[in-house]
Amino acid sequence: MANLQDILTSAAINLLTALGFLVAFALLRLQPFNDRVYFPKWYRKGIRGSPTSSGTFVKKFVNLDAKTYIKFLNWMPAALRMPEPELIDHAGLDSAAYIRIYVLGLKIFVPITALSLTVLVPVNYMNDTLERSKELTFSDIDKLSISNVPNASPKFIAHLVLSYVFTFWTCFVLYHEYKTLATKRLEFLASENRRPDQFSVLVRNVPPDPDESVSEHIEHFFCVNHPDHYLTHQVVYNANKLAKLVAKKKSLKNRLVYYQNKFERNPQNTRPITKTGLWGLWGDKVDAINYYTTEIEKLSEEEKKERERVASDPEAIMPAAFVSFRSRWGAAVCAQTQQSSNATIWLTEWAPEPRDIYWRNLAIPYVELNVRRLLMALAFFFLTFFFMIPIAFVQSLANIEGIKKALPFLKPIIEMDKVKSVIQGFLPGIALKIFLAVLPMILMLMSKIEGFTSLSSLDRRSAAKYYLFILINVFLGSIFTGSAIQQLEKLTNEASTEFAKTIGRSIPMKGTFFITYIMVDGWSGIAAEIIRLVPLAMYHLKNTFLVKTEQDRDEATDPGSLNFATNEPRIQLYLLLGLVYSVVTPILLPFILIFFAFAYVVFRHQIINVYDQKYESGAAFWPHVHLRVIIGLIISQILLMGLFSTLAVQKSTYILIAQPILTIWFHRVCKGRFESAFVKFPLQDAMVKDTVECATEPTLNLMAYLKDAYIHPVFKGGEMNKPEAVDEEEKSPLVPTKRTSRMGSKRESEASSEGHGYLRS
Amino acid sequence: MANLQDILTSAAINLLTALGFLVAFALLRLQPFNDRVYFPKWYRKGIRGSPTSSGTFVKKFVNLDAKTYIKFLNWMPAALRMPEPELIDHAGLDSAAYIRIYVLGLKIFVPITALSLTVLVPVNYMNDTLERSKELTFSDIDKLSISNVPNASPKFIAHLVLSYVFTFWTCFVLYHEYKTLATKRLEFLASENRRPDQFSVLVRNVPPDPDESVSEHIEHFFCVNHPDHYLTHQVVYNANKLAKLVAKKKSLKNRLVYYQNKFERNPQNTRPITKTGLWGLWGDKVDAINYYTTEIEKLSEEEKKERERVASDPEAIMPAAFVSFRSRWGAAVCAQTQQSSNATIWLTEWAPEPRDIYWRNLAIPYVELNVRRLLMALAFFFLTFFFMIPIAFVQSLANIEGIKKALPFLKPIIEMDKVKSVIQGFLPGIALKIFLAVLPMILMLMSKIEGFTSLSSLDRRSAAKYYLFILINVFLGSIFTGSAIQQLEKLTNEASTEFAKTIGRSIPMKGTFFITYIMVDGWSGIAAEIIRLVPLAMYHLKNTFLVKTEQDRDEATDPGSLNFATNEPRIQLYLLLGLVYSVVTPILLPFILIFFAFAYVVFRHQIINVYDQKYESGAAFWPHVHLRVIIGLIISQILLMGLFSTLAVQKSTYILIAQPILTIWFHRVCKGRFESAFVKFPLQDAMVKDTVECATEPTLNLMAYLKDAYIHPVFKGGEMNKPEAVDEEEKSPLVPTKRTSRMGSKRESEASSEGHGYLRS
Repeated sequence: MANLQDILTSAAINLLTALGFLVAFALLRLQPFNDRVYFPKWYRKGIRGSPTSSGTFVKKFVNLDAKTYIKFLNWMPAALRMPEPELIDHAGLDSAAYIRIYVLGLKIFVPITALSLTVLVPVNYMNDTLERSKELTFSDIDKLSISNVPNASPKFIAHLVLSYVFTFWTCFVLYHEYKTLATKRLEFLASENRRPDQFSVLVRNVPPDPDESVSEHIEHFFCVNHPDHYLTHQVVYNANKLAKLVAKKKSLKNRLVYYQNKFERNPQNTRPITKTGLWGLWGDKVDAINYYTTEIEKLSEEEKKERERVASDPEAIMPAAFVSFRSRWGAAVCAQTQQSSNATIWLTEWAPEPRDIYWRNLAIPYVELNVRRLLMALAFFFLTFFFMIPIAFVQSLANIEGIKKALPFLKPIIEMDKVKSVIQGFLPGIALKIFLAVLPMILMLMSKIEGFTSLSSLDRRSAAKYYLFILINVFLGSIFTGSAIQQLEKLTNEASTEFAKTIGRSIPMKGTFFITYIMVDGWSGIAAEIIRLVPLAMYHLKNTFLVKTEQDRDEATDPGSLNFATNEPRIQLYLLLGLVYSVVTPILLPFILIFFAFAYVVFRHQIINVYDQKYESGAAFWPHVHLRVIIGLIISQILLMGLFSTLAVQKSTYILIAQPILTIWFHRVCKGRFESAFVKFPLQDAMVKDTVECATEPTLNLMAYLKDAYIHPVFKGGEMNKPEAVDEEEKSPLVPTKRTSRMGSKRESEASSEGHGYLRS
Repeated sequence: MANLQDILTSAAINLLTALGFLVAFALLRLQPFNDRVYFPKWYRKGIRGSPTSSGTFVKKFVNLDAKTYIKFLNWMPAALRMPEPELIDHAGLDSAAYIRIYVLGLKIFVPITALSLTVLVPVNYMNDTLERSKELTFSDIDKLSISNVPNASPKFIAHLVLSYVFTFWTCFVLYHEYKTLATKRLEFLASENRRPDQFSVLVRNVPPDPDESVSEHIEHFFCVNHPDHYLTHQVVYNANKLAKLVAKKKSLKNRLVYYQNKFERNPQNTRPITKTGLWGLWGDKVDAINYYTTEIEKLSEEEKKERERVASDPEAIMPAAFVSFRSRWGAAVCAQTQQSSNATIWLTEWAPEPRDIYWRNLAIPYVELNVRRLLMALAFFFLTFFFMIPIAFVQSLANIEGIKKALPFLKPIIEMDKVKSVIQGFLPGIALKIFLAVLPMILMLMSKIEGFTSLSSLDRRSAAKYYLFILINVFLGSIFTGSAIQQLEKLTNEASTEFAKTIGRSIPMKGTFFITYIMVDGWSGIAAEIIRLVPLAMYHLKNTFLVKTEQDRDEATDPGSLNFATNEPRIQLYLLLGLVYSVVTPILLPFILIFFAFAYVVFRHQIINVYDQKYESGAAFWPHVHLRVIIGLIISQILLMGLFSTLAVQKSTYILIAQPILTIWFHRVCKGRFESAFVKFPLQDAMVKDTVECATEPTLNLMAYLKDAYIHPVFKGGEMNKPEAVDEEEKSPLVPTKRTSRMGSKRESEASSEGHGYLRS
């Protein structure tokens, strides 16, 4: 068991690591040749151009201004300076709401930490239970935890009272955040520019009609049932094959460009050669440029045919459509009501933004959808509880003997002592590490199979799965020190009170473990986030081999985006740890506070300067965040009941039982009050927007505006990865008066006006 | 433990009791002076008049036609003869759907019983486990149950396979019944005549406005947000005090009539005297007729004042209203959408029928509603788990010594030996019996406190509570032979597998107990239902003392109504018993089948001839019925897993675990597919009805039609108990060509046409 000394050493090491990352970041981000990696968002917005304006050739790549190096933490205040309304304008409500999760953590834990450290730590420390019990080993940390209070001591009153105070405070903060977010969302929706999804509804499961085509059937149905409001519709084509062809063509073009560049740079060389097999590694040798040119021509021909087929074949039309209405009111009505007496056809829901749509899932029939959900639920259960089985199997294979057998030619290398010890130390963990790295992708794939139709809902669904996985395998797994399936066995074979006691006893003992976990996973993870090693490497590779024009360079930049599906569940783990240990081991709380504060600054910087939004859902994920904090709160309350039942505190169960009941009730109240703001669109707001628009733009041709909004991206000039920007927003930058003048200029670092600080400081 | 002989004796006794009731019913119902008790529905509909037409004086009261007595079970085929569409016309969809619950029971259990008796009974009987185990006492019944199969026998394959067959069959029947009911409901709604609730929406939580009255505010809001559809609205008055006055006046009038009758019949007597105190038992003696006349005058004055106050005082207007629209489409849209961005104001829902409204609950604010629900949930928990505590306390008081102390003057009587033994045998049970009798009322009161706004939803809510109570205290209580709180303690202090085993072991042993329960509670209960002892007595009392005119006699008839809140949970108990014992003790099934068949005939007779509908919700309760059968099915599956885990059948848990998972999934599929038919009204259907109406009645003045539809009943001529019939239905009898001609005629018994059978056979 670690003592205070160890923890402090570990903290120092982790702080130094984090500091190292920050210094590296400070050095890298100031170099102009990394500019597109660390400020891609501004390039995407067209506000920042390539550094070509002035200075020597060297200056184009390396920053020689020594002054800028001194203040290497300058980006922090800069990141904090942009006020929230402008942040929402700049990066969208999703991003702003995401960093509010960190604020939520701070708001919950700053007062709890203060109270816990001033009240509970002295109460815990003024005892000598651990010192008297000779057989136990204990650390200084444990002296500050609840374990140091003797059984049945009246001092537990402090813990019981504070657990109520913490619960009420958490609920209070949650309530106000939910309220704020609901307000912000409604304001955001109200202030948004005209967007196609405001007028449109996604209709699925259009029933087949023997006499009419899908398109006619939809038109007739809505003309009859929404006579005053129906405007037009856009059927959905099954263009999955076409999309694949387009993607393949693009990758071939990349190769062609690579070889052309190679040849052009050294024209005296022979023409480049490639092999026709997989990844150019096997097969016949051919002239690369000619080969790829003909391949691309072939593909273009194929693509053209497929394009014609999709356009003419009625089989390619899926029983789904985007139906647009004359007014937002009409769309709001259609999205919220049931159309047909058969609840499995003519399903309507708000259309996602065009860029948010996950096109492949638009045409899944109702029953199949149900079967898919069932299968995925079972698959997720097995994944969560039995994932260790295949990993243990791989681990059993991946030993020295196994490698020697499989790859006998490596035998002499492996048997060298040093190599052997490295492999032996490295191998057992690698299967698990690889699994954990690909887990978010597996979960996303499962969500896709479940048939969600928008990227935002896929992200939310994956986050829910990932949270459950972390909760069971990381949190409970660490407390029990056993696999999930062992927990399940224990749970069914032990009395639930016995089970609660087992957990209760082990919570205080795991405090130091989780402190280390927070530092290694939390602190260092955040510091690694900001340095963007992978995009940095990718950008420079692409830049070297593929980039010819400014547009290529634009495409080579991968700004990335907020990875909600992975990041949010991790935050939830820290919230859960904080709530569980707030009464038990208060000394853990400062570590969590540092995590939240640090992560807040880093992610604020990232969403301002780096991440590009894949979609804008208007903070639709907040009810999920709220629910998961509530789940964490209830778990912490139940664990506390288990702990107290081992401490011989009379009637503690009866004293504590009210907490989960009140929390569940609180959740219901919040749900009833605020959730509808995230799933419905009130008619009053729709009417207001319609009326204003009608007054300001009486001549608007809505039909022309909506005509092509919901066309599959492959039909829009053949570009797959970057659907045409349909946002009004993106066409006209948000704060044009301040920023457009700076386009392409590189004098930001000298400027001193407030607005500049966000770009570089 | 009862053996087969005992069971058969008990069955014979119960059958004879039931038969006795039936004979009594046959005798009583044929007497013309009971006609209004046993055929009130026809009187309510105005199709049957009082027997005044022909014959001697005696014939008016006693049926002297001997032939009618011979076939005393004739009412049974008559009750079965009316086809279902006509039944729906005659008694409403609620009643028709209610008796379909019995049909559901029959459909589920007829094939299960056949299969179980032909397969499982022989399999169970061909063993000698019970005979060989000397220490156990066993009965013939047990020889037919699963207990007779030796542990780990391969014969259990039959039980496992059949449990899957039964699950699939039950789900199959449930699915088809749900589908049928959904279709019937939609047809019913589509074929309904014009009713005010089709055009109206109940709006609650209207926010206060400083400049406008509630009425103006509502009008403005809906004029703005539903400009093309809003027609008119009716605010809700807080007339609770007025309603009380009206009710009091009515009861005083009854007393006045009673004394007037008394005096008129014997004018030579002195004028009747009454006392002014409670129930006329205490206080000063006064002339009864004068006293009540002046009291009524006083009350009338007070009522008039209150009426004026309500009409003029803005404080008497509650922040709720019934808003009516120009079309069903407009109402459907408003009911299904959210109006304001604040989800706690401008709440809209379908308006209940005018007669279905529970007026007192229309103005509860959102937060108060949440607090009420929480408190009632807690109260229900304590009621379910701790109801034995006050009862045990009362029981401890209610012994001989206690009575002697409290009422010393009774001492000599009590100490007589016979009286003493009666009291001692009678007292302990009485508190519990009284509690169980008033339990449905307590639950209804709790539901009312929870703030539901319609009688139908109150019934559904109470049924849910009653079901939980029966499930925990009757079903689980009998299996555990312990109180609910003891079960809860066991559940928390024992491992869940251990707990399942405890239940599993005791299920087969309780088979004979439940067989007796089905006979005593089920069979005899149904037989008692048909004889209507309480209404019979009440009618004759009222007829003797209060009735002067034909209209009085009409009011003296209490047709009663289907008591969904109490009856449905009881049916669910039998369904649950059938499902649990279908694999374990198949011999129980025939008893359940008899219950369902008998109850089906009896209730079909009752809804045709007796019950008057309080409201028509269009079978809105079916999703609840479906859900509770699913719950029963899952309970039976879990108990079976517990039982099998004690029988040393290898892997039985893994074989059986799929059942509850699939059942839950099945429930989700059904819910998604059919539930919306019961809670939403599809726009397509609304549009069809609107279009048809527009074509057939282009000159309809909807405004006039809707103007007074939703006025509080006290404002409608001062009658509280019988709100004016607003149904078109009731104004024009349903099958006029067949039945109106018979109004007032008494020659039905001689007639032979098919239609007559429903009236009397």
